[in-house]
Amino acid sequence: MIAPITINEVGLRDGLQNQPRLVPTAEKLALLDALRAAGLRHFEATSFVSPKAVPQMADAAALYAALPQDEATEYAALVPNRRGYDRARAAGARAVAVVLSCTETMNQRNINMTLAQARRVSAEVMQQARADGLIGRAYLAVAFHCPFEGPVDPAVVRALAAEMIGAGAREIIIADTSGAADPLHVARLFDLLIGEHGAAMLSGHFHDTKGLALANCFAALERGVTKFDASIGGLGGCPFAPGAAGNLATEDLVNMLETAGYETGIDLDGLAAAVTVAEGCVGRELGGRWIAWRRSQAARRQSRAAS
Amino acid sequence: MIAPITINEVGLRDGLQNQPRLVPTAEKLALLDALRAAGLRHFEATSFVSPKAVPQMADAAALYAALPQDEATEYAALVPNRRGYDRARAAGARAVAVVLSCTETMNQRNINMTLAQARRVSAEVMQQARADGLIGRAYLAVAFHCPFEGPVDPAVVRALAAEMIGAGAREIIIADTSGAADPLHVARLFDLLIGEHGAAMLSGHFHDTKGLALANCFAALERGVTKFDASIGGLGGCPFAPGAAGNLATEDLVNMLETAGYETGIDLDGLAAAVTVAEGCVGRELGGRWIAWRRSQAARRQSRAAS
Repeated sequence: MIAPITINEVGLRDGLQNQPRLVPTAEKLALLDALRAAGLRHFEATSFVSPKAVPQMADAAALYAALPQDEATEYAALVPNRRGYDRARAAGARAVAVVLSCTETMNQRNINMTLAQARRVSAEVMQQARADGLIGRAYLAVAFHCPFEGPVDPAVVRALAAEMIGAGAREIIIADTSGAADPLHVARLFDLLIGEHGAAMLSGHFHDTKGLALANCFAALERGVTKFDASIGGLGGCPFAPGAAGNLATEDLVNMLETAGYETGIDLDGLAAAVTVAEGCVGRELGGRWIAWRRSQAARRQSRAAS
Repeated sequence: MIAPITINEVGLRDGLQNQPRLVPTAEKLALLDALRAAGLRHFEATSFVSPKAVPQMADAAALYAALPQDEATEYAALVPNRRGYDRARAAGARAVAVVLSCTETMNQRNINMTLAQARRVSAEVMQQARADGLIGRAYLAVAFHCPFEGPVDPAVVRALAAEMIGAGAREIIIADTSGAADPLHVARLFDLLIGEHGAAMLSGHFHDTKGLALANCFAALERGVTKFDASIGGLGGCPFAPGAAGNLATEDLVNMLETAGYETGIDLDGLAAAVTVAEGCVGRELGGRWIAWRRSQAARRQSRAAS
């Protein structure tokens, strides 16, 4: 029951993409260093999107060229389409990810495509990645609830997962983009997908908008899912989904997993240090529930020492 | 799988007992009105403890006399010993609860008794309640982790549960007093206890100290537990357990349950109104994750309306 868990740190992309302060490449690399020092080895490093649409990611190629390489560390680049894919590949990316929203309206609002167009574009990227020997990953966004269309039928998610896997995706990341999932819904959807593709093909990306991300991770974890996205300090959230703020904080997930006896290879003190670096990047206070608890403990010790 | 869930609101006792402002009886009753208006029907109303030790509960008898009575509403009184039991019974209590910590050190710090003494005192109250036709409930505190002794052996909790049930307890409430439980630990302990006594005999009391309370509730819920404690706005926490601040907020639990399709009979808007009443009682801002989300949505609507 107790398996090693892989945490994919998305702070550098999902976390930073919507921040008002333009974070220089050197600071992103310093944050990456802190995250690696804490033991993280899987990263969503950047996205090869239009610099006009997302100025924060304009340095994607420069960042990729500067990423510290070792055998144990894996970086993925988000790509919106074939053009982004070509840029990512030219920059040296060995893993690419597409984001396919599960509803018509979300695709239109997010990337100005119909669902059919988005499926075609995503499938094309997955096929090309397979042909080129790159790892292709497909996010299925708003897989539980769409802020525009409401609850999402698990059958729709199932069909899109099968389509992406057929096109070459080596991993499907089920994303609760608006933080509206509940653990029973997670259990049902993962039961369905695991039955078809096995747990090793799947990953979970949960937002903590209403405090449910850990419960949702646990529901997936209990079913054998061993891969989860998280963002240092809870940085980020989708800019196009109303009320979506609040990625699951990496340190909250690691605290739950380590307390429960799962192996993550990640050090909580190291994550606390990385939260401080991330705070420097965005110029404001960050941190999930574990950081709040840690700070309250530190304040308690100080007041005791002073009295 | 989807069953009606009973939420036992503990804000009036566990929530208020350690608050610096002495809340007048009339304000406690106004909070109770707001909670009843939201649909809550099960309350830990007060505790019959020494007014010197817990001045906030000095009005226990007066409060009990003023509690609005109807067939659907159940009130319980916490009693530390036989003397407290007699006072509670004289005040008209029909349900009483004892708190038995699962470790030596916690009993000594919390109530200045050895574990053996605490077991005797609790058993005596449960026996007397059974003899008098009152409902007896037993909290097993620090059932997962003791801030002084570390992890608690499930076998110890199992033995104490059996002892209290043997003495007459009609319900055992498994309490994560310091907010240190994780959902796998919850799963293991409840599997053990449900196997012996059935889920209907059990309830869960989780603290959200590190953000794990909902995941812990879900782990119990999945195993068939249908009764949970929660505190409006997250009010309270045990004053004797270091770092224990942060009861699970009633509104966070109701949001998870209602989103997942469980019936609670409780209205979230009504809970938001009750949070405001509770804030008036304690003179500071309250609210768990759902309230924070609700406030961010309101701020977003206002800024949109202003632009």
